[in-house]
Amino acid sequence: MTEMRTLKVALLGCGNVGAQVARILIEDADALAARTGARLQLSGIAVRNVNAPRDVELPQELFTTDAETLVKDADLVIELMGGIEPARTLILSALRNGACVVTGNKALLAQDGPTLYEEADKAHVQLSYEAAVAGAIPILRPIRDSLSGDRITRVLGIVNGTTNYILDQMDSTGAQFADALAEAQRLGYAEADPTADIEGHDAAAKAAILASLSFHTRFALENVHCEGITSVSAADIAAAKDAGFVIKLLAIAEKLANADGGEGVSVRVHPTLLPREHPLAAVRGAFNAVFIEAENAGELMFYGQGAGGTPTASAVLGDLVSAARRLVLGGPGRTETTTGHVPALPIDAAVTSYYIGLDVADQPGVLARIAQLFAEHGVSIEIMRQTIHRDAESKVESAELRIVTHRASEAALAATVEAVKGLDVINSVTSVLRVEGV
Amino acid sequence: MTEMRTLKVALLGCGNVGAQVARILIEDADALAARTGARLQLSGIAVRNVNAPRDVELPQELFTTDAETLVKDADLVIELMGGIEPARTLILSALRNGACVVTGNKALLAQDGPTLYEEADKAHVQLSYEAAVAGAIPILRPIRDSLSGDRITRVLGIVNGTTNYILDQMDSTGAQFADALAEAQRLGYAEADPTADIEGHDAAAKAAILASLSFHTRFALENVHCEGITSVSAADIAAAKDAGFVIKLLAIAEKLANADGGEGVSVRVHPTLLPREHPLAAVRGAFNAVFIEAENAGELMFYGQGAGGTPTASAVLGDLVSAARRLVLGGPGRTETTTGHVPALPIDAAVTSYYIGLDVADQPGVLARIAQLFAEHGVSIEIMRQTIHRDAESKVESAELRIVTHRASEAALAATVEAVKGLDVINSVTSVLRVEGV
Repeated sequence: MTEMRTLKVALLGCGNVGAQVARILIEDADALAARTGARLQLSGIAVRNVNAPRDVELPQELFTTDAETLVKDADLVIELMGGIEPARTLILSALRNGACVVTGNKALLAQDGPTLYEEADKAHVQLSYEAAVAGAIPILRPIRDSLSGDRITRVLGIVNGTTNYILDQMDSTGAQFADALAEAQRLGYAEADPTADIEGHDAAAKAAILASLSFHTRFALENVHCEGITSVSAADIAAAKDAGFVIKLLAIAEKLANADGGEGVSVRVHPTLLPREHPLAAVRGAFNAVFIEAENAGELMFYGQGAGGTPTASAVLGDLVSAARRLVLGGPGRTETTTGHVPALPIDAAVTSYYIGLDVADQPGVLARIAQLFAEHGVSIEIMRQTIHRDAESKVESAELRIVTHRASEAALAATVEAVKGLDVINSVTSVLRVEGV
Repeated sequence: MTEMRTLKVALLGCGNVGAQVARILIEDADALAARTGARLQLSGIAVRNVNAPRDVELPQELFTTDAETLVKDADLVIELMGGIEPARTLILSALRNGACVVTGNKALLAQDGPTLYEEADKAHVQLSYEAAVAGAIPILRPIRDSLSGDRITRVLGIVNGTTNYILDQMDSTGAQFADALAEAQRLGYAEADPTADIEGHDAAAKAAILASLSFHTRFALENVHCEGITSVSAADIAAAKDAGFVIKLLAIAEKLANADGGEGVSVRVHPTLLPREHPLAAVRGAFNAVFIEAENAGELMFYGQGAGGTPTASAVLGDLVSAARRLVLGGPGRTETTTGHVPALPIDAAVTSYYIGLDVADQPGVLARIAQLFAEHGVSIEIMRQTIHRDAESKVESAELRIVTHRASEAALAATVEAVKGLDVINSVTSVLRVEGV
């Protein structure tokens, strides 16, 4: 057997994912070497506290608090610390030293990706981040490489397992949001401070990354309209269910006509009604999936585990082996192409269908007046359904009106809802939710 | 703008897929150049008859019958002629000339892949064939690259749209196989000579390719056990449905313990019962999907259009752009790694659950005798269900027994079925089908 080259791998961070990456690098060293053509030697693990307890037993001598020195001596750097600093400085330093970098840091990529990409381009090294979106699911490489000869028109993703678990629980048990969240926290699907998940911030960072790769244009977090799931009620879920829909928190990036006649991309995260027969509707529990529409390929879906130490470690190692093979075989690295330069559209420009729930007075002509008002605002109604609730003496207690519109712009819808609120026959607008996949 | 390099692209074959590839190369030339960093110039299209009618209008001057000359002058060669010769000779000639080759020729890859891979390795050029398996779905690249740091344990694929369409029709309408086939032919989902699809040969070639990439070992068509769907009856489908299953033609590659205590890979294609809640069960019509189980990533599924000119062209162009980027940036090509050397197992070594339908005599003790016989052969029964059919006077017409076993080897099952046939209380064995996903 010929002598194999050794590549030094520096690991920054040893949490949930990092510990599994270290374990696999050690346990599967021979298999990884066979596939790479070089030995991947874990040269050290930078942590804040070398004595902190770990998920996995690892050789104590690997741990160090001196991340900078570790990075300087590495051929490949895996950054799994999370957060902006010191991750950003360490990644930039690694790239400048000519090391390939693998990261799962979606917050950093969404906030300051362009700086990192430029540094990687300059140094002709590879910056990969498959683990940053949808955990174990290979999604960034297929978008970047497999679909590089196609035109993606729309991406719909369930990219946050915590919120999918909560919404799925609400859907299957009828639980209220607060109870489903508490259950998710008890089972470890939600963190003690669940803000980043339930407010949609985590999904928004992933939406920015998906949009950037899909449309060959750099989109930042500030281009993403973001609504979380905290206001989704058990009543919303029940009404959606009744109408044949399921509510999912979707990260959406789609190409739309811009107001100036050109094209733009709407990037947004919000609770969305999906018909139960849509492939994404079947994504249960904490699973993730990304649904892609492309001009030539048509509809594609990628499904798998979106989080968890071991699954996410699989994505990190896929990037690591690919980068290492590149080092072994020679040739420069490649990050992403940004040749599209399509503008990000404001949320007002988004075009979608809407589900509107109204508590209305039971008077003759109410439906006609509401329908008329929608028509005046250019919003076409697809389905209108009235349910009358009566008490024991058959007296009307309340009347509920559920409307699903055809595709309309956010602006037109907002104006319609505003006008509806002004009608004297409306007691309240109980819900306004967007609908996809119809 | 800096002067861009031009890469010459030779297209061999102009059928369904080839015509769309040519169209996209011409129509999307600017976008492809922006993503590649080089202009992809279609230098010619080799066909048997330059005047044959085409799906797409293309410049007549591109057509030639002289494939050899076309190949000699190309930087990139796309082979979409199908069949073994002259495709094989032209691909080898292209690789020897230092051209990257993109092909969708699953039959050639399954039969003589190793020769092609070796030639590509020797010439340090790229041989890509994403279009050969599951049309538009990015599946080979994710297996080869994204999962390169993981260990795949099992692959289950719906990789033939024709048979999935036929089985889906039988499942949803209760049609017999012959009627569903005729309908598929009428709608263009099945060819006039449907043998390659319905006998499983097409799926078997794809199974060999999937197994080779997943287990880093070269498997040929002769290593694949292959059963088609011609013997699947409406009664089988109805019985499966009744028991909560759907019948799919699956391409399966899985790692199993070998008889010698080592590991081996079972590669097979056969009709398979899947629980209706399995993600693959929801793959309807002519769609394809590949379900992967990996040690770290867990369960992954890739779903999309498995055939059709335009979707398959998307996969061809993804490979083409990736190969062209490599040429632009420098660096050698890479095909696959074959460092595993796990043996292919014979079908007898496959371990799975079975569904067995029996027409039995209505006598006391029949169930006990059959259960006893299964136990003697080491095949454990999970579910046993008897249905008695009576005529108008409540007289027993027939008794039907349906059995689902726990996982057992093909060999044990075959011996059990043979012994069951010998029982005097058995009128006939109505079906023996394998079950996955339970």
